[in-house]
Amino acid sequence: MMGKRYEIQLAGEGGQGVVLAAVILAEAAAVQEGKNVAQSASYGPEARGGLTESEVVISDEEIDYPRVVAADVLLAMSQKACDAYFPFLKENGLLIVDSVQVERTPRADAYRVPITQIAEEATGKAVTANMVALGLLVGLTGVVSIPAIEAAVVARSPKGTEALNVKALHAGLEWARENRR
Amino acid sequence: MMGKRYEIQLAGEGGQGVVLAAVILAEAAAVQEGKNVAQSASYGPEARGGLTESEVVISDEEIDYPRVVAADVLLAMSQKACDAYFPFLKENGLLIVDSVQVERTPRADAYRVPITQIAEEATGKAVTANMVALGLLVGLTGVVSIPAIEAAVVARSPKGTEALNVKALHAGLEWARENRR
Repeated sequence: MMGKRYEIQLAGEGGQGVVLAAVILAEAAAVQEGKNVAQSASYGPEARGGLTESEVVISDEEIDYPRVVAADVLLAMSQKACDAYFPFLKENGLLIVDSVQVERTPRADAYRVPITQIAEEATGKAVTANMVALGLLVGLTGVVSIPAIEAAVVARSPKGTEALNVKALHAGLEWARENRR
Repeated sequence: MMGKRYEIQLAGEGGQGVVLAAVILAEAAAVQEGKNVAQSASYGPEARGGLTESEVVISDEEIDYPRVVAADVLLAMSQKACDAYFPFLKENGLLIVDSVQVERTPRADAYRVPITQIAEEATGKAVTANMVALGLLVGLTGVVSIPAIEAAVVARSPKGTEALNVKALHAGLEWARENRR
């Protein structure tokens, strides 16, 4: 599945939790699986407008340049995020969008997943959409193992929210299992 | 206080919350104050050993290189973290260490602050030490305004923990106000 270097970009609006999702994915790969990982987020003038992005670079080897150069995966939680970051996706890279938020998808083979809706159905809370997104990402790519992402989600969840977040994660994994092409 | 580019490095052991502290500081500077900000964290083989670091670069201008080159501030929450990252601190950079965790400080003019103890006294929870650290950092540098860091702490706190985290933040700000040289 993975080559030497694997680049993941998560993008959405402020409050959708894409920075936290990146931190959790980074910890799953590094702390649980012992990979070299760089996690980052940039905030430009667009941060006030609500656009937020974060990146995870995972490698078996030392990471020379810590930012996304050409993404292997883009997960976009909003139309603006999809439009802004699609140009950085590799030609054969994996595009996953929240179909509830993204109307126009720039590529026909994108995974259009009702992420927000899956979150609401699984946990009653749209705010767990970032955990559904993590489940999708792991389920569709195998970039980290399921036990590794579970452990990282639990470690990063505020006390009392662990079970809810794992439930949302599994809803994403489940969708990926059923719909993976 | 700030030049064009200001580099902050936070380092500690896993579980001390230095990545979250960096994310909050980044959001205070970007979302609340409209600066250009890059936040990042690297995890190498040492992540399994417990060492964790994160970085925030803040600039009035576009950020060309998003990582710390020579830190203006190093905040170290453990001896190992202090030893590992001190070499990246500028010669006249600001060194802040948790005196509860760091015995040997590499520079005589470091701020030795009992961060963990202040957290326990302020909130009864050592886990709020990262919020005390944020308060110290803002109080000693003025890198963002107090309202900006308060708003970012509240926005990032799990429901029900906002007041506790703001209390810890203020304990750090208070220490800085009383002891700033």
